[in-house]
Amino acid sequence: MSTTVSPLAPKSVPELKPVPGVTFTTVAAGIRYKGRTDVLAMAFEPGTTVAGVTTRSLCPSAPVEWCRELLKKGKAGALVVNSGNANAFTGMKGREATSLTADLAAQAFGCKPTEVFLASTGVIGEPLDANKFEAALTEAAGQLVDWPWLDAARAIMTTDTFPKLATATVLLGDVPVTINGIAKGAGMIAPDMATMLSFVFTDAPIAADVLQKLLSKGVKTTFNAVTIDGDTSTSDTLLLFATGTAKERGAKTVKNIDDPALKAFKRALTELLADLAEQVARDGEGARKLVRITVTGAVSNKSARRIAMSIANSPLVKTAVAGEDANWGRVVMAVGKAGEPADRDLLSISFGDIRVAHEGARDPDYDETAVSDYMKNDVIDLTVDLGLGRGTDRVLTCDLTKEYVAINGDYRS
Amino acid sequence: MSTTVSPLAPKSVPELKPVPGVTFTTVAAGIRYKGRTDVLAMAFEPGTTVAGVTTRSLCPSAPVEWCRELLKKGKAGALVVNSGNANAFTGMKGREATSLTADLAAQAFGCKPTEVFLASTGVIGEPLDANKFEAALTEAAGQLVDWPWLDAARAIMTTDTFPKLATATVLLGDVPVTINGIAKGAGMIAPDMATMLSFVFTDAPIAADVLQKLLSKGVKTTFNAVTIDGDTSTSDTLLLFATGTAKERGAKTVKNIDDPALKAFKRALTELLADLAEQVARDGEGARKLVRITVTGAVSNKSARRIAMSIANSPLVKTAVAGEDANWGRVVMAVGKAGEPADRDLLSISFGDIRVAHEGARDPDYDETAVSDYMKNDVIDLTVDLGLGRGTDRVLTCDLTKEYVAINGDYRS
Repeated sequence: MSTTVSPLAPKSVPELKPVPGVTFTTVAAGIRYKGRTDVLAMAFEPGTTVAGVTTRSLCPSAPVEWCRELLKKGKAGALVVNSGNANAFTGMKGREATSLTADLAAQAFGCKPTEVFLASTGVIGEPLDANKFEAALTEAAGQLVDWPWLDAARAIMTTDTFPKLATATVLLGDVPVTINGIAKGAGMIAPDMATMLSFVFTDAPIAADVLQKLLSKGVKTTFNAVTIDGDTSTSDTLLLFATGTAKERGAKTVKNIDDPALKAFKRALTELLADLAEQVARDGEGARKLVRITVTGAVSNKSARRIAMSIANSPLVKTAVAGEDANWGRVVMAVGKAGEPADRDLLSISFGDIRVAHEGARDPDYDETAVSDYMKNDVIDLTVDLGLGRGTDRVLTCDLTKEYVAINGDYRS
Repeated sequence: MSTTVSPLAPKSVPELKPVPGVTFTTVAAGIRYKGRTDVLAMAFEPGTTVAGVTTRSLCPSAPVEWCRELLKKGKAGALVVNSGNANAFTGMKGREATSLTADLAAQAFGCKPTEVFLASTGVIGEPLDANKFEAALTEAAGQLVDWPWLDAARAIMTTDTFPKLATATVLLGDVPVTINGIAKGAGMIAPDMATMLSFVFTDAPIAADVLQKLLSKGVKTTFNAVTIDGDTSTSDTLLLFATGTAKERGAKTVKNIDDPALKAFKRALTELLADLAEQVARDGEGARKLVRITVTGAVSNKSARRIAMSIANSPLVKTAVAGEDANWGRVVMAVGKAGEPADRDLLSISFGDIRVAHEGARDPDYDETAVSDYMKNDVIDLTVDLGLGRGTDRVLTCDLTKEYVAINGDYRS
């Protein structure tokens, strides 16, 4: 496991103010390890609405199935996040554990079990003993605070090398509201898989169905446009909670996605999701370079996304970036294998502002020295123009280094 | 670049006898490097038929497009394979180079330009100066031999760590015929992409359309069931030539795929393709373990293939195998992300004969020590049963090691 902070970490950690209606604490339940906090518990003001998106995996964890069911009602009273055990691939026992955890949290925080959201990361295939939550959640209920958020962000880290936080203050109509978000990235808990979790909170009063529309739209260009290694976790969960406490300061409840009062909020939420998603890419396992891949001129935006993902998930493109090699031949390869419309003789490829290939051949003006210098940067912009249509997309990834292999393969060496 | 032979190399190299109607030689054309042979030239008996399959890349190299065009007629007079330059992403100049090479080979070997098959590996995006072939091919025509085949196999190696050959003698009806095959695997020529080439030869008289059916069927379970890193080359080419010279020994020309005389030949050809394909997997870049992934109980064979490929291309599964870690949690993840029908609670997973997971949870009889010992083997059999239907498939891959990253990313370090 890496103990040094990613060289791509943001230079400073933002300061997050309280979100009225949200309190939290961290406690030790002894799920897997002794003597460390392993549970983040959060309690929400009655009336809090919630939206969420979860992994597309067809073999999801028990907490993911639990959240999917609860999201149908859109009401939240509490959130319990544990590390040390993912409660994935645990069969009927896994379902029993989620149900028991929700009962215990409901008792501790005074809400309904069907309003308790759950997320777990850690070892998979091991039954999770939810009885361990009883004392821990009772303790948690007695020590809830609304600050500092850095503690909450740190509590959900596993092998992340830095805590991931983002915040925005924005007008909802004419009332200022806060949006706070935290995330954990693609880290490992031996011997398990990468998991992405993110939780976003606001005091804005927004109906659950509107919140879901906002979130579903927001993830398309942010979290769903990030790939570290193309491996989709069984546990990926992103939840957005709205306590509605800004009503006390005059905010009107938003019940329609087209409400003009939402305009600034929409933009701020998408920016915040993009910020957190970029932090996840910056902390990809073994990452030394952040790679922003932009595809233009595709036959559709969907086609552009598939081509961008084909490039972003190509081991040969990612190792070339790690080697500071502007290997556009591998980019051509990744375009060609994507299975989407592409005409070799119309392709243009640029690294930063330097066009290396144009109309299906090496750009005659391409300066090898300039592009070599460019590849030494921490952030690499790779642009591919297909010259076919108006479809465009952007995805984020990182390079593939020996450290990635070490982190994921060195258990027994 | 690795200079040591893969630990997975076959223990011995088979001895290949001549295939009547096939002669060859290697020469130095100075395409990229001086003082080394870089061209394999082969000449075929008049009347030789040919079948082929090429990369599915939508951005193929110029020689691939050339071969695709010629395969429509199914007649072969010569084959020219060069290393040092892939003639890929070279635009109009690339097409001119293939055309000139075919003209020069036709003059040298006395056949039509439209019967000259071409394959190139090496740097991409650099124009290939085909004039360099003139003296080389004239020289080649004067020194054609029918043996030893090891020279031909060595001539097409790039960063392969061992030459890849396979042979079979089989009855066509009641006449013995020979099948010889050579291949180059997923190696790199800095700064370019992996390329797979294979050429197979027989003296059996088989009509081109029958040959194509045999080959198209044969690759499904062999070459198309191998993946090193999921990156499809722009240059992948597999050609099967049949000189028909066995007619002189009484063999009748096969004009129908259902001809009973083909029975043994079909089986031998598929076995030979499987042998070469496995050699390619055994020489995957940085490979230390060969992984055979079998999926059973899928809703269809096609679904089983997709799930097997999702597992075989998962960086987390491949790094776990490199680390000798029977990490079935990552296998569940790869099944879940494949997008094919799967029910977590019906899954069973085995490493070798050891079942580690059953009916959606850890197998209660699973012995950690036994599975740890098993993971130390050079060849790992991973079996996933979905419990849904009768679809089944098998694919080959190798592990993902730090050496893979070093080979593909260390150019500038």
